[in-house]
This record gives sequence, structure tokens and C-alpha cells, in this order.
Amino acid sequence: MAAKFITLDGIDGAGKTTQLNVIQEWFTAQQLPVVFTREPGSTPLGEQLREIVLNPASKMTPKAETLLMFTARQQHLDDVVFPNLNKGINVVCDRFTDATFAYQGGGRGLPYAQIAALEQWVQGDFQPDFTLILDVPLEVALQRIERSREKDRFEQEPAEFYRAVRETYLQRAASQPQRYAVLNSNREKEVVRQDIFNLLNQLFER
Amino acid sequence: MAAKFITLDGIDGAGKTTQLNVIQEWFTAQQLPVVFTREPGSTPLGEQLREIVLNPASKMTPKAETLLMFTARQQHLDDVVFPNLNKGINVVCDRFTDATFAYQGGGRGLPYAQIAALEQWVQGDFQPDFTLILDVPLEVALQRIERSREKDRFEQEPAEFYRAVRETYLQRAASQPQRYAVLNSNREKEVVRQDIFNLLNQLFER
Ligand SMILES: Nc1ncnc2c1ncn2[C@@H]1O[C@H](COP(=O)(O)OP(=O)(O)OP(=O)(O)O)[C@@H](O)[C@H]1O
Ligand SMILES: Nc1ncnc2c1ncn2[C@@H]1O[C@H](COP(=O)(O)OP(=O)(O)OP(=O)(O)O)[C@@H](O)[C@H]1O
Ligand SMILES: [Mg+2]
Ligand SMILES: [Mg+2]
Repeated sequence: MAAKFITLDGIDGAGKTTQLNVIQEWFTAQQLPVVFTREPGSTPLGEQLREIVLNPASKMTPKAETLLMFTARQQHLDDVVFPNLNKGINVVCDRFTDATFAYQGGGRGLPYAQIAALEQWVQGDFQPDFTLILDVPLEVALQRIERSREKDRFEQEPAEFYRAVRETYLQRAASQPQRYAVLNSNREKEVVRQDIFNLLNQLFER
Repeated sequence: MAAKFITLDGIDGAGKTTQLNVIQEWFTAQQLPVVFTREPGSTPLGEQLREIVLNPASKMTPKAETLLMFTARQQHLDDVVFPNLNKGINVVCDRFTDATFAYQGGGRGLPYAQIAALEQWVQGDFQPDFTLILDVPLEVALQRIERSREKDRFEQEPAEFYRAVRETYLQRAASQPQRYAVLNSNREKEVVRQDIFNLLNQLFER
């Protein structure tokens, strides 16, 4: 079976990083090769750009922000994603292009068509094999963020921003149900964990 | 008369920064409003990206490098170039999109059509009113660089790289002679200076 590119997305605080550990557990149990990456980041260039884009002191227009995200993505694809997939190693990524549509499109208001043009420039027709959207109500996400850490540049945005971000994720998932699964992440971690195990079993026909 | 966007380009060591002082002198003498900028740079984001892209320790693919240049450009246009032009202030920029065609296209080998697509995404149909290409033989440029400072990430490229960069500048200038002027910069600074004064007098009908 060809190696798969799996992405995990959803608003800040939805539980992506938490559930990545679950995915790791599953791959270990199945003895399948896998690498874990994140966007923006996962290359020296990407991590430098991540620092800039998340720093609350940074100032950039929505279009510059979008170009910056795709810069990190280009490097990540060429240095990490493609080489691993070509070697038969599965790649699981914490955020991918769905986040650009959600944050820079839904959140910042950049037209989806403009994002799709850059997506094509950077990725061609390459798309994740499977995308897991972790979904929680806004208030839950905001509470989790408040509790867990200092806010980055996005997390300082108002609730309406996050409402539009979440809406975009749900719309994209609904429009392509074979590629996406939306999981209600406002449940006990253990319950979400079991759903993820089931989804992965199905995806890899275990 | 509407404010003009003037760009200065050419291979490293051609004398752009040197001749910017001449242009400044001319604007001062004519009492015309002007701001001087540079790419990549001229905004806090742009200067951060400049540091990354010129640092010899940085690693990036040609496509990521191109996206990075356009990220800085987008911010520069929106924060500096357009607002100044709209206020009637002329803008003179040390390097612009011609450099992306020359370095990432000619030098790195990225197809011009791909660069043109990003140019359209970022600039729409906006173009400089006038572009001055300072041209010197490769050997002269390399000698000047050797003498003057530590080499950045581009300046460490071999002579063939710079040959292609120079070729692209000359081709672009030749294809649109009304927008470009090519000046032989392998002459005494004073002589080049007089040519620039003449060109600016013509451009502003003085
Ligand atoms: N199902 C859950 N129930 C309760 N709390 C949760 C659940 N999942 C995650 N959390 C908690 O919510 C907080 C945010 O989770 P996590 O960091 O995994 O979110 P995230 O989606 O990765 O956020 P970001 O996008 O900002 O990285 C953490 O404190 C985590 O322990
Ligand atoms: N006409 C000239 N004759 C001799 N030396 C020159 C001339 N013009 C510039 N130089 C010298 O060449 C060196 C490089 O010039 P300058 O920094 O202006 O080039 P540049 O095009 O701005 O380069 P970069 O693109 O790397 O910024 C400097 O030491 C400068 O004094
Ligand atoms: Mg996380
Ligand atoms: Mg210079």
C-alpha cells in the first residue's frame, strides 16, 4: 500500500496536538512507518517563518501572511513530505492548506479563489489522502487556550474571527466527505481517541 | 504630474546603491517629494525576511525563495509603495520584480511563467513607471564585490549563475525599451551620474 499523507486540522485549542499522540500510538502499534510534522514549520526555514507569523509583534497584510504560509509549505513539501512519501513512509501533519483557507480565507477574508491559485502554484494537484478535522464549539476552544498558554498572533483575534475559521473548516469537509472526517472534539479525550483508532483502521484497512 | 515608481536593478556590485545617492541628489535639487526603499526589505517583516534570504546559512528551494521574495514585496507595496504614490510622493526602489525574474528565474532556473503568475497575484497589473538597469561585465561586478564586503547567500553563487542573471536583465530591458534604460556602469561614477541626471530630466520633463 502506498504511503499516505494525513493532515490534522481545526481551530486553535481543538486538540490537534493532543490527538497527534494518539495517532503516533496507533502507528507504533501497527508497526507502520510514519513521520510527524507541523505547519508552518518542520524545516529550518519553516520554523523561522513560524516564529515570525505567530509572534504577536509581527505586522503583515492578509496577502503577505498567505504567501508566508505557502513559503513554509513549499519548503516542507520538497524537503520532508515528498521525500518521505517516496520512501514509503507515511506523513502526518499538524495543519496544512485547509488552515490557510480557514484562517487567511475565512478569518482574514482573502477570497478562496486567490488561495486556491497559490495552492496550485505550490502543490500542483497534490492533496492529503485524508484530513481529520477536530471540531469544538468556539467557547470551548477559547477556554482551553486561556487555560493552557500565552496567546499567539492568531489567538488574539476576536471570537468572530474564529467563528469564520471554524465555518470554513466545516464547509470544506462537507464539500468533500470522502477526504475529510469531522470529529467532535468536545468529548472526553479517550472517546475521541477511540474514534481516531477506528478511522485509521478503516483508512489502512486493518 | 502623478508620482512615479522608479526601480533600480542589476547584478550585485553593479552600483545600484552608489547611484541611489545620485538619484537622491537629483530629487533634492528638483525639490520633488521622494522616498527611497529597497527589496527585499523596507518594512519590519521585509527586513526580517531579507535577513533570512541573504544569510548564507539559510536553505531553501528556488520556489520557496521566490515565494519569500513576493511575501516581502506584498508587504512593501501595501505599506510603503502604494500609500506614498497615493499621496503624490515618488518612490525609488533598490531592486524590484525584475530581480526575481533575474535571480530566481535566470539564476535558479524557475520558469518565467511561474514567476509571472506570482507577479500577477501580488501586483495585479501594477508595474514600475521606469526601471534603470545598471549593467557591468561579470568580472567587474565580482571584483567590486570581493573588494567591498562579506558575501551574502547569492554572492556565493558561481559565475554562470550571474551570467544568467545579467542575461535576464538585458533581455527584459530589450523587450520593453520604453520602460527600461540600460546604463553601462563600467565607467567612472561621475559619467554614470550624468547619464542618470539626463534620464531623470527626461522622465520628469525638466
Ligand atoms: N478532548 C479534550 N477534552 C478536554 N481538554 C482537551 C481535549 N483535547 C485537548 N484538550 C486540552 O485543550 C488544550 C489545547 O489542546 P491542544 O494543544 O491539543 O490543541 P491544538 O488544537 O493543538 O491547539 P493549537 O492549534 O493552538 O496548537 C490542552 O490543554 C489540551 O490538554
Ligand atoms: N562606476 C563605478 N566605478 C567603480 N566602482 C564602482 C562604481 N559604482 C560602484 N562602484 C563600487 O562597487 C562596489 C559595489 O557598488 P554598490 O554597493 O553600489 O553595488 P550594488 O549594485 O548596490 O550591489 P548590491 O546589489 O550587492 O547591493 C562599491 O564598492 C562601489 O563603490
Ligand atoms: Mg497544537
Ligand atoms: Mg546595493
